[in-house]
Amino acid sequence: MSIELGERLFQELEQLPLIDPHTHINPHSAASETLADILGYHYYTELAHSAGLPQSAIEADGISPKEKVAALVPQLALLENTAQYQWLLVMCKEFFDFQEDRITADNWESLYDAAGAKMAVGDWEQQVLKQSKLDQVYLTNDFDDPLTGFDTSFYVPCLRTDDLVFHLTKPDVRDRLAKATNRDIGTVEELQAAITDLFTHFTKNNARACAISLPPDFSPAPVTSNSVTSLWTRLNSGKSLAADEIVTLSQFVFWQLAENCDEFKLPFDLMIGVNRKVYEAGVFQGQDLYDKRTSLIQYKQLFNGFPNVTFPVSVLTHTSNQELVSYAWIFPNVIANGHWWYSNTPAYIEHDCRSRLTAIPQSKYVGYYSDMYKLEFALPKFRMYRRILAKVLAEDFVIANGWSEQRALELGKRILRGNVEAIFGK
Amino acid sequence: MSIELGERLFQELEQLPLIDPHTHINPHSAASETLADILGYHYYTELAHSAGLPQSAIEADGISPKEKVAALVPQLALLENTAQYQWLLVMCKEFFDFQEDRITADNWESLYDAAGAKMAVGDWEQQVLKQSKLDQVYLTNDFDDPLTGFDTSFYVPCLRTDDLVFHLTKPDVRDRLAKATNRDIGTVEELQAAITDLFTHFTKNNARACAISLPPDFSPAPVTSNSVTSLWTRLNSGKSLAADEIVTLSQFVFWQLAENCDEFKLPFDLMIGVNRKVYEAGVFQGQDLYDKRTSLIQYKQLFNGFPNVTFPVSVLTHTSNQELVSYAWIFPNVIANGHWWYSNTPAYIEHDCRSRLTAIPQSKYVGYYSDMYKLEFALPKFRMYRRILAKVLAEDFVIANGWSEQRALELGKRILRGNVEAIFGK
Amino acid sequence: MSIELGERLFQELEQLPLIDPHTHINPHSAASETLADILGYHYYTELAHSAGLPQSAIEADGISPKEKVAALVPQLALLENTAQYQWLLVMCKEFFDFQEDRITADNWESLYDAAGAKMAVGDWEQQVLKQSKLDQVYLTNDFDDPLTGFDTSFYVPCLRTDDLVFHLTKPDVRDRLAKATNRDIGTVEELQAAITDLFTHFTKNNARACAISLPPDFSPAPVTSNSVTSLWTRLNSGKSLAADEIVTLSQFVFWQLAENCDEFKLPFDLMIGVNRKVYEAGVFQGQDLYDKRTSLIQYKQLFNGFPNVTFPVSVLTHTSNQELVSYAWIFPNVIANGHWWYSNTPAYIEHDCRSRLTAIPQSKYVGYYSDMYKLEFALPKFRMYRRILAKVLAEDFVIANGWSEQRALELGKRILRGNVEAIFGK
Repeated sequence: MSIELGERLFQELEQLPLIDPHTHINPHSAASETLADILGYHYYTELAHSAGLPQSAIEADGISPKEKVAALVPQLALLENTAQYQWLLVMCKEFFDFQEDRITADNWESLYDAAGAKMAVGDWEQQVLKQSKLDQVYLTNDFDDPLTGFDTSFYVPCLRTDDLVFHLTKPDVRDRLAKATNRDIGTVEELQAAITDLFTHFTKNNARACAISLPPDFSPAPVTSNSVTSLWTRLNSGKSLAADEIVTLSQFVFWQLAENCDEFKLPFDLMIGVNRKVYEAGVFQGQDLYDKRTSLIQYKQLFNGFPNVTFPVSVLTHTSNQELVSYAWIFPNVIANGHWWYSNTPAYIEHDCRSRLTAIPQSKYVGYYSDMYKLEFALPKFRMYRRILAKVLAEDFVIANGWSEQRALELGKRILRGNVEAIFGK
Repeated sequence: MSIELGERLFQELEQLPLIDPHTHINPHSAASETLADILGYHYYTELAHSAGLPQSAIEADGISPKEKVAALVPQLALLENTAQYQWLLVMCKEFFDFQEDRITADNWESLYDAAGAKMAVGDWEQQVLKQSKLDQVYLTNDFDDPLTGFDTSFYVPCLRTDDLVFHLTKPDVRDRLAKATNRDIGTVEELQAAITDLFTHFTKNNARACAISLPPDFSPAPVTSNSVTSLWTRLNSGKSLAADEIVTLSQFVFWQLAENCDEFKLPFDLMIGVNRKVYEAGVFQGQDLYDKRTSLIQYKQLFNGFPNVTFPVSVLTHTSNQELVSYAWIFPNVIANGHWWYSNTPAYIEHDCRSRLTAIPQSKYVGYYSDMYKLEFALPKFRMYRRILAKVLAEDFVIANGWSEQRALELGKRILRGNVEAIFGK
Repeated sequence: MSIELGERLFQELEQLPLIDPHTHINPHSAASETLADILGYHYYTELAHSAGLPQSAIEADGISPKEKVAALVPQLALLENTAQYQWLLVMCKEFFDFQEDRITADNWESLYDAAGAKMAVGDWEQQVLKQSKLDQVYLTNDFDDPLTGFDTSFYVPCLRTDDLVFHLTKPDVRDRLAKATNRDIGTVEELQAAITDLFTHFTKNNARACAISLPPDFSPAPVTSNSVTSLWTRLNSGKSLAADEIVTLSQFVFWQLAENCDEFKLPFDLMIGVNRKVYEAGVFQGQDLYDKRTSLIQYKQLFNGFPNVTFPVSVLTHTSNQELVSYAWIFPNVIANGHWWYSNTPAYIEHDCRSRLTAIPQSKYVGYYSDMYKLEFALPKFRMYRRILAKVLAEDFVIANGWSEQRALELGKRILRGNVEAIFGK
C-alpha cells in the first residue's frame, strides 16, 4: 500500500514544472550534441576510470566523441548498479527511444546514432526543456562573463566567486578582474570597487545569487582593508605571499562578497566541504574529494554578521547534514539547499530529506538542483529526487501523520519549487 | 502487516506508566498556566523566528501571554511539517479537546480560551500527570536550590553543575556557592568542601543524579588541588585568568564532581556537545548549536578513572551516536541515555534507537527523557518515542528474530522504564 | 511482498560457497574445542563485562573452559537483544542441535556437553567448513610466522604488519624481525632488506595480502631512509625516541610496506580507525575504541603514490563510510572492504551496504569478511550479511529499478565472492 501511495504521489510531483536553481549549463550550448556530451559527464568518466579505464582512453588528444563513447561503453557493465547509471538509462529511454535495459557493446552504436539524430534537430534544446518541464535554469557564471547572447530571464545568471576568493594570488585572475571591470586594481580600495562592479554587472543582468564552493577548513572572518594593504601591494609587485597571508586575503575577499550580497540583496550560495585535486591523476572534474572533519560552526561569524543575507547552504557530506538541519532550524538566514555531489545518491538523499522535512520550517529547504552541465540531466536527476520526496511524504506525512495526499503534495511542491521562487525570486 | 504489528506494540507501550529521568520542570509551577507556556517553549519560538518572526514580536517587554500566542500562530503554518508541531497538535487534542488538524488564525483564540479554562482548574497539574502516566519526574536544579516546598519523592532533584564547572570565574557564581554552603570559599580546600556540601544537601533531599552539559571541546582530566591554588587565589582577589587557566579550573571542578559522585554513589549525567550562544541574536534558549567534531575519546580518562560511577551519556548529534553505542558496549559504567535536542526528531531517533538496541546490553540504554519545561510535553514526546520504539521492536525483533510480541514488549518496557529504575534508583 | 522477495534472494545467496578474506583463524587450531572457545570470543566477554560481569570471573588464572561458560551464561539474558547474541543462537542451532530460543542457567550444561561431543569428533573442522560453505579462509599472520604445517592454498596467509609499523621501538619486536629474517638489522638498509625478506617469505607461501590496523590519527607519508638513519641508530643503541621520531619511524616503515606491496603485487588491506587500550581494565581484546575524527584525506599521498597497489579499505565507523564510498568512487586503487567491528551490526551494515551498492562500481566492494577467531563464526556472521544484502538487492534493485531476481543475484554473488577472487586472486 505504501508503495502504491508513494507511486501516486510521485506521479503527481512529476507533473510539476520546475526551476533548476543551480546548474553549470553553458547557455550558448545548453543541450548535448552527441552522446559523448552525456557519457563524458564526470559522473561517468570518473566511475569508468575508477573501475579500471585508463584516463588516456577518454582524454587523449584527438579522441572523437564517438571514440570516447566506444571507450566508455565496455566499462558501463560495472556501473549498472549505480544511481548514476539509472540517470543514464532514464535519459536514453526518455529522450532517445532506447528500449533496452543495458547499454552494451551490441547496442551502443545505434543508440549513439539515434541520440545524434535527435540532437541534430534545430529545436532540440527546446524539446529537452519542454519534456523536462523546466521553466527556468540557473547558471554558474565566471565573474568576468559578459552575460550576453542569451535570455537571462530563462538562463538566470549566478556570480560564481571561487576564483576571486581562492585564486586571486594568480596574476591571470587579477588580470581578468581588471579587464572585466575596466579598472586598475592595484590598491585595496580599487579591488573593493572592482568587486562591487561585478555585483552591479550581474544584478543588472538578472543574477539571482552569488555562489562559491569552499574547502572543509575555510572559516570566514571579517578582515579590515588595512590588514590586507601590505600584502596586496606585495602581491601586485610580483612577490608571493605566506600561507597565512593567502588565508587572510581569501577571508577579506569572501567578506567583501558577503557585504555586497547584503547591499545588492543577493542570496549567497555556500557549497561547503570540497577539497580540490585530491586525486591528481584523475579524469577531468574527477579529482576532488573531501575531509569530513568540517563544521558549520566555522560560519558562526558570517551567519551572525549578515542577518539580512540569505545563505542557501549545500553540504558535501551526509555527516554534515544534521548540522545543516540544526543551523537552518536556528538561524533565520540559513537555508538547507539540495543534495550535493557525493551526497546525491538515494541512500543519502532519503535520510537527509526526511531529517530536514521533519525538523525545520518548510520554507527553509530548497529540495533539489541538478548541478548539470547539459540539459538532458535535469529530468533523471529530478526524477530520482521526486521519487524519494514522494516516499518521504507518503511515509512520514500521509501514513505517520494522517495527512491527506493533497496536503502532502502541497508540501512537496513547496519544497520542489515554491521555495526556489521565494528565496531566489521569480 | 508490519504497520499493524507496530501499532499493536505501540498501544501496549502506551499503557506503561513512566518515570521521566530528565526534565527542566519547576516543581513550584510544573504545569502550564496559559497556552503561551506551551507555545513559548523554545522549540516553537526558535522555529517561528527561524521562519521569519522577529524576536521582538515575542520577547519585547510587556507582551502578554495572549499577545505572544497571537504573534506565533501565523508562523505555525510553516512549521506544520515538523515533529515539534506534532507534539503541539497532540497536546491540544489530548489536553484541550482540540478537534482540528491545524492551529490557525481562525481557531487559535478558542483554543487559547479552552486551554486557559482547563489550566485554571485547581488540580490541572494532577490531571496532566495522570493522563501522561507519569509516576515520577526528575528535575534539573541549580546547585543553590534549597529543594524545599515540593515533594522530592515525586519531583526528584538532580544537581546541575554547569555553573560550577564553566562559570566559577564569575563572582556572582562564587557568591552563590558561598551563600548556599554558608562557607568562605577563598581556598581550594574550602572550595572542595563546599562542593561536597552540595552533594550532601542534594542527596539528603533525594537527588538521584549529578548532571552537566558540556561543550564539544571539553576534555575531563585530573587536576591536583595544588595546580589550582595560585589561580584560585588570583581569581578571588579580582584578577582575571588566562584561557588555559580557565580550562584547568573547569577540569579541576569537574573532576571534583566525579569524585563526589563516586563517594555519594550518584550517577553523573553527561550531556555532551553543545556550544552556547552561537546565534547571539536568537530568541530565549534558541541560541545554542554545536560543532560535530567531538569524540568520546575525550572522556577516556574519566571513564577509566571512575569505574564505580555510572555515566548516563547523552550526545547532541547523530554522528556521535555510534561512539556512544561503542563506548557503552565496552565500558561498564557508560550508559546510552535518551535522544537529546537536535537528535530528538524521528529520523535520528529511529536509527539511533535501532543501533543501540541491536548492539549493547539491554540494561545499558535508557530510552527516553522529555527534557520538558512544562508537564504537558511529556505525553507527546514520549508518545513519539514509544511509536518509534514499537517500530524497531516490530521490525528488528518480532519480524527479524522471530520473537513473540510479549517478549518484544518486555524489552521495550525495560528500555522505557526498567532501566531508569535500575540506574537511578526507585 | 518485499519480505518474501528478500527471503527468496536470501535463500539463493545462502547457497553460495564463500572465500572469507579476513579472519584471525589459527590454522593449527581452527575450530572450537569447547563452547568456551565460542563464548570466550571478545564480542561476548566484553558485552558480559559491560553488563556487569567482573573481568576476574572469566579471566582469573586457572578458570576452566566450563567455569568460564558458567560465569558468562547468567549475563546472556542481558545480551539477547544484540546481533552478537543472534550469531550465538545460530551457531548453537546449526552446529549443536540446540532447539531453544534462549541459553539459560537451565539448559547451558547440556548445550555445553552437546557442543563438546560434536567438537571432539575428528573431522569437526571439516564438518564446520562444509556446513559453512567455506572454500578458502584467509589468515592474519604475524610477520615472523613460519607459515608451515598447514595447507596455505586453503588457509591463505596474510602478512599482518601492525607490529612493524607501530612497535618497532620495542627491542623484542626488532629481535623477532632479526630472527625471522636471519639478519642483523642495525642499519636502515638492513631493516629495508629484512622487510623485503618478509614479503618474499610470505608471497612464496601464497600470501594474498599485507594488512594493518591503523589509529585514527595516522597519516602515511613518504620518509627517506636518510631521515631515519640517525634515529634508527639511536634506537638500536638502547636510547628512546621522541614522540615525533616515533611517528617518523612508523611512517617510514609503512611506506616501505607499500613499496613492497607494489613490487610483490600484494593488495594492502588498511583497517582504519582503532585506538588500542582505551579501556585499560577491559577484558582480553575488549579494550579498544576510537576517535571518529579521522579522514581518508590522511591517505591522499598514499593513494596517489601507489597507483598500482590495490588498497582494500575497512573503516571502523559508520561516519567514515561515506568517505570510503567517495574515495572508492574516485580512486581506482581504493576498494570498500567489508563491515568492520563496531560497524558490523545490522543497523550500520544495511545503510553502508546500500550506499556502496548504489554509488560505486560493482567491482570495488568486497561485501564481507568474518574477522573470526574460530571457524564456527563464519556461518552466522555471513548469514547476517547475506540477509541484509538480500534486502538491499530486493528493495533497491528488484523493486526500485525493476531488475529481475536473477540479475540482482548476479550482483549479490559478485559482491559476496566474485570480487574477493578478482581482488585477492583465486
